Amino acid sequence: MKALALKPKQAETLDLIDLEKPRISSDEILIKTLSTSIDRTDLDIYVGLYGKEPEGEDRLIIGHEAVGKVIEVGKNIIGFKAGDFVVPTVRRTCGDCDVCVADEPDMCRRDDYKERGIVKAHGFMSEYFKDAPENLVKIPKELVSVGSLIEPMSVAQKAVSSIYKIQKRFSWRPESALVLGAGSLGLLSAVILARYGLQTFAYDIVSENSVKAQIAKMSGATYIDGRDLKLDEFANNYGKPDLIIEATGNSSVAFDAMDIIATNGIMCLLSISAGSHEETICPDCLNNDLVLGNKVVFGSVSSNRSHFEKAVEVARESEKKSPGLLSRIMTDKLKFEDFRRAFEAKDNSHIKSVIYFE
Amino acid sequence: MKALALKPKQAETLDLIDLEKPRISSDEILIKTLSTSIDRTDLDIYVGLYGKEPEGEDRLIIGHEAVGKVIEVGKNIIGFKAGDFVVPTVRRTCGDCDVCVADEPDMCRRDDYKERGIVKAHGFMSEYFKDAPENLVKIPKELVSVGSLIEPMSVAQKAVSSIYKIQKRFSWRPESALVLGAGSLGLLSAVILARYGLQTFAYDIVSENSVKAQIAKMSGATYIDGRDLKLDEFANNYGKPDLIIEATGNSSVAFDAMDIIATNGIMCLLSISAGSHEETICPDCLNNDLVLGNKVVFGSVSSNRSHFEKAVEVARESEKKSPGLLSRIMTDKLKFEDFRRAFEAKDNSHIKSVIYFE
Repeated sequence: MKALALKPKQAETLDLIDLEKPRISSDEILIKTLSTSIDRTDLDIYVGLYGKEPEGEDRLIIGHEAVGKVIEVGKNIIGFKAGDFVVPTVRRTCGDCDVCVADEPDMCRRDDYKERGIVKAHGFMSEYFKDAPENLVKIPKELVSVGSLIEPMSVAQKAVSSIYKIQKRFSWRPESALVLGAGSLGLLSAVILARYGLQTFAYDIVSENSVKAQIAKMSGATYIDGRDLKLDEFANNYGKPDLIIEATGNSSVAFDAMDIIATNGIMCLLSISAGSHEETICPDCLNNDLVLGNKVVFGSVSSNRSHFEKAVEVARESEKKSPGLLSRIMTDKLKFEDFRRAFEAKDNSHIKSVIYFE
Repeated sequence: MKALALKPKQAETLDLIDLEKPRISSDEILIKTLSTSIDRTDLDIYVGLYGKEPEGEDRLIIGHEAVGKVIEVGKNIIGFKAGDFVVPTVRRTCGDCDVCVADEPDMCRRDDYKERGIVKAHGFMSEYFKDAPENLVKIPKELVSVGSLIEPMSVAQKAVSSIYKIQKRFSWRPESALVLGAGSLGLLSAVILARYGLQTFAYDIVSENSVKAQIAKMSGATYIDGRDLKLDEFANNYGKPDLIIEATGNSSVAFDAMDIIATNGIMCLLSISAGSHEETICPDCLNNDLVLGNKVVFGSVSSNRSHFEKAVEVARESEKKSPGLLSRIMTDKLKFEDFRRAFEAKDNSHIKSVIYFE
């Protein structure tokens, strides 16, 4: 079978390779890949910034946002059958630490977890892959065309679920939400927040007429062009948001936004920011603002099976309420043989590339 | 009756004044003040940095950490009688916002709450004060001598309770705690944490033989002299703590400590820091560390009745387990007429001044 693999930590070594089709044990499931989508982590791996090959191998098959169709199930498998559509989870239990034992590998306390397509485990950019049933989430047929978005949606879902869990620290009644960055994570966050009855704002630096802004509006959010309205002006005009999700990949925006969290509010840092530039801040101002306002800032990474399952639910609702919204996030739909185009530089209108395997 | 009052926002105007003894309505309780203790907020008010007089008046009676004895109860009062020992809460409901209506005035969303002895309501540094029963928490006789510590302990209790509530976001099993600053809030935090079975470290910049270090050890914590062991070295030696409580009043320490929170860990900012100096940080480093480690930083201020009630419980346990520990926090015990000494500059061995009214 064909697969896309590279040498991690080396720039642009991605190539098409030919491998034997995986053989399953009686406890495994064989899946035919339908499509995989690309995110910032894939791009970082592509340019050699990140990633690690499985032990004893010299290449890593990339791809961690995938949807596939079950082809064959091992004889001990119950609950899955050929023809089922599935989405695989990404981070895998270390099998050892207390949180992994509690089925929360997204919170693994060890540094040696595996993430398929990212760290020490092959990904899904191959014609077939196999997996254990606990790592596969079934999706209904009507979500297959947007199935590879379930993974990033699960990451956004973890952020939102964590916000609501954390805020159970008191009797919270949020009214407004601000999503910073209208890339795929930001837009999927806005789609999720639409279920919570909040006045939601999506903030980016593209025009009102852009695809990003249009999708944000489809989700029910008000789009704000940050080139016209700085964050402090936004807060003056619309009030300080009760919750903020930071998904720009720009840590300076993250720090600016800490100044406009509402009293008792919460901000989730959801994006990795590249670089290590220095910035001058007033630590007393930030400290006192967080203390006197009972405010929370937290980081969130990865997701577990429960977030995937919730994401499937949200995606179904979204498809009913705003048909086509999710599909529009996939701005670049590519055939397998055109995979290199997914890694080329993109302009501001690009959101996400998807590679189809059939 | 005698009282200590000042003109807020003016330096060193504190003076002894003579007032009429309060008269109670049928819904109020009259309390004879036994003792009040002094914290950083009182000192800030004393030097004119903070505080606001009640509407229509030109002076503020200070003091918000108090214990007293019920002298008289209004005819509609049930549950209190003359002779009861009580501690008053500080922040009072705005009566309007949703969190105050839910009995959490410590989270008041408006800027116009009242805090007795601090903002727009007289404090307890007078021979008598009156209050409504919902603002009074009964304490057992054996806690009277340390009763004025219940208020700061309630503030530390809110921090610890919030930490445990927030961490319900996943299956958390903390092992270690670090308290930064062995002032009264830090030491009371250590006393509270002792109940949770964690390996607790108290960190300050005084010697092993100091009263602060001795009290920290009495609480069950390991004392670390920060002059010998910087925070990064501490983390190398003892591991990154699962929870950190920042109570130094130094925001630079707060930012340094963000680097040593364990994976999935949490840090509570509990102290206001004076000044507005600038500092150079790497926002990407901090952002990525919080994101990839699923870490939380939050601020906590004030406390509500539930935290006072819990603090009474903790204080009882502490008195049984480590008799005399709480009393040692009150390093300067002063008669009412010597009140000025409570506001003089103190050396590093000082923790807290208490003023006795009889």
